[in-house]
Amino acid sequence: MPLDLENVRQEIEKELQSLPLEGEPKELYEPIRYILNIGGKRLRPTLAVLGYQIFNDNYGNVLKPALAVEVFHNFTLMHDDIMDQAPLRRGKETVHEKWSPNVAILSGDVMLVKAYELLLGIDQNILAKVIAAFNKCACEVCEGQQFDMNFETEKDTSIPAYLEMIRLKTAVLLGFSLEMGAILGGAPNEEAELLKNFGERIGLGFQIKDDLLDVFGEQEKFGKQVGGDIIANKKTYLLLKALEDANTTQKQTLEHWLSKTEFDPKEKVAAVRNIYDELDIEQKAQNLAQNYFDEAFSLFNDLKREGHKKAPLKTFAEKLINRVR
Amino acid sequence: MPLDLENVRQEIEKELQSLPLEGEPKELYEPIRYILNIGGKRLRPTLAVLGYQIFNDNYGNVLKPALAVEVFHNFTLMHDDIMDQAPLRRGKETVHEKWSPNVAILSGDVMLVKAYELLLGIDQNILAKVIAAFNKCACEVCEGQQFDMNFETEKDTSIPAYLEMIRLKTAVLLGFSLEMGAILGGAPNEEAELLKNFGERIGLGFQIKDDLLDVFGEQEKFGKQVGGDIIANKKTYLLLKALEDANTTQKQTLEHWLSKTEFDPKEKVAAVRNIYDELDIEQKAQNLAQNYFDEAFSLFNDLKREGHKKAPLKTFAEKLINRVR
Repeated sequence: MPLDLENVRQEIEKELQSLPLEGEPKELYEPIRYILNIGGKRLRPTLAVLGYQIFNDNYGNVLKPALAVEVFHNFTLMHDDIMDQAPLRRGKETVHEKWSPNVAILSGDVMLVKAYELLLGIDQNILAKVIAAFNKCACEVCEGQQFDMNFETEKDTSIPAYLEMIRLKTAVLLGFSLEMGAILGGAPNEEAELLKNFGERIGLGFQIKDDLLDVFGEQEKFGKQVGGDIIANKKTYLLLKALEDANTTQKQTLEHWLSKTEFDPKEKVAAVRNIYDELDIEQKAQNLAQNYFDEAFSLFNDLKREGHKKAPLKTFAEKLINRVR
Repeated sequence: MPLDLENVRQEIEKELQSLPLEGEPKELYEPIRYILNIGGKRLRPTLAVLGYQIFNDNYGNVLKPALAVEVFHNFTLMHDDIMDQAPLRRGKETVHEKWSPNVAILSGDVMLVKAYELLLGIDQNILAKVIAAFNKCACEVCEGQQFDMNFETEKDTSIPAYLEMIRLKTAVLLGFSLEMGAILGGAPNEEAELLKNFGERIGLGFQIKDDLLDVFGEQEKFGKQVGGDIIANKKTYLLLKALEDANTTQKQTLEHWLSKTEFDPKEKVAAVRNIYDELDIEQKAQNLAQNYFDEAFSLFNDLKREGHKKAPLKTFAEKLINRVR
């Protein structure tokens, strides 16, 4: 019997809690449990299980590999937080703050090894294939993070370069989660590839929506400070598109705010948002996100499997893209 | 035809240089080539090939997996250097100095992924087994590094805890290199295990000798500053043994030098070395290293394979333990 969405989440959580992640020295292992337990939507393992269930009902085989992507994702968060000097992650102290940067480096390294460990239950006929796909994805995620850091100091980041960065940093792991689920479920290569591309498009649209929510979201629903990206001069699709479409005056105003080191945050957010409004940036970003989602669902329609097999993943993806926070 | 030692080294170097390690962004990939090219004795891949050749002449199958241990080793160096804030590695700027700590974190992460990639050519019947052994080893190496960092601030480090730390940090990777070579060469489990234990013992003795050379080595042959460990209060077998064996006066003198924040380095080295001499620490450490080597070669004698098959590894290990630098 396939699991429904609520049960998928429960099984993933149960399996995650039962992982043997204890060990000595404790500075190495406690942060792993800590970061895994500060929450998250378990989006990636959920995708893996839902992708699997399109092809196979026997979900027991996919849970451990599904956790590999969750552990990998949290490894990237632990290391990214050091690099970004982030004090908080989901409202809790980050590992490098609570322990130390060294502990966060080394615990993260162990998490990456643990991700591979979770893949080892995979049937030996497809193990090398899955690990090869995982390796490719893992390198791409690192490339995305490095591009993102490079953008911080780079003068002219192009929109295509930005979109490629978010594809690498965010989207490919969603794509891999679905691809792996499909491979483990017994999907032929073309169908696994199709689901991978579906996941990447969803991921790209998802990230654009995230950029949008940061500026246009409702504070209490979004849960973080509205306008944080604007305050931090973060290069997002919104900013890059505004710089592209701005007339000379608008461009000067934008660059004025980008170069200011002392400012009233509210004033800066209002001023930049004002230009976004003049240039219809919200709508342009909505359109781009919608394009990605349309592409995603068009691919999904090409997947010739029974509707009731495809329905859970479709419903889940629809919920995901309609989230307000 | 099996390779002789000189050819093993050449083949490893050739294979290493031909690895496709280029990519974008360049900050991510250039440091990988950089750290691999600042040298090193390629000890671990050499052990893998020599272990393999005891059981199998067709060395072509072992070269890529052998490089996995070299790439993994250099990954640990790149991350350890950040943690230890080391400015130099083999006389060259460390990656975090030449680029930045963030680059060193992320490049290191990619190197770990690349190590797994190099294992993927292994026959699928034994792939999971080799990766499982590699994972265990990789976690242990991280544990060793964390213990080593903990010792820096720990009050009373015991000698057994120190020996376990160097086993984890240094010896298990030598053991794994031989174990993997044996498995790939077709050795039965007991023989692979035996070579692993041989490698660990060699590694333990090797590290004790390294501690010895730091204090009693000849400057020009050793190639680093003599007494560096003493100056830095590094907990080594020598220091821990001296603290254990010291009488009250000697202990007070040692602790005096350990707690001093301003001192003449030469004076400190001479004073501590004087106590080592009084307590016969050099001989005691020599004996401990010799015990490990004796254990190692006793295990090696239990390996019932033709003498000419075993000879190259034996010769190599003997050279290794008799090195003066």
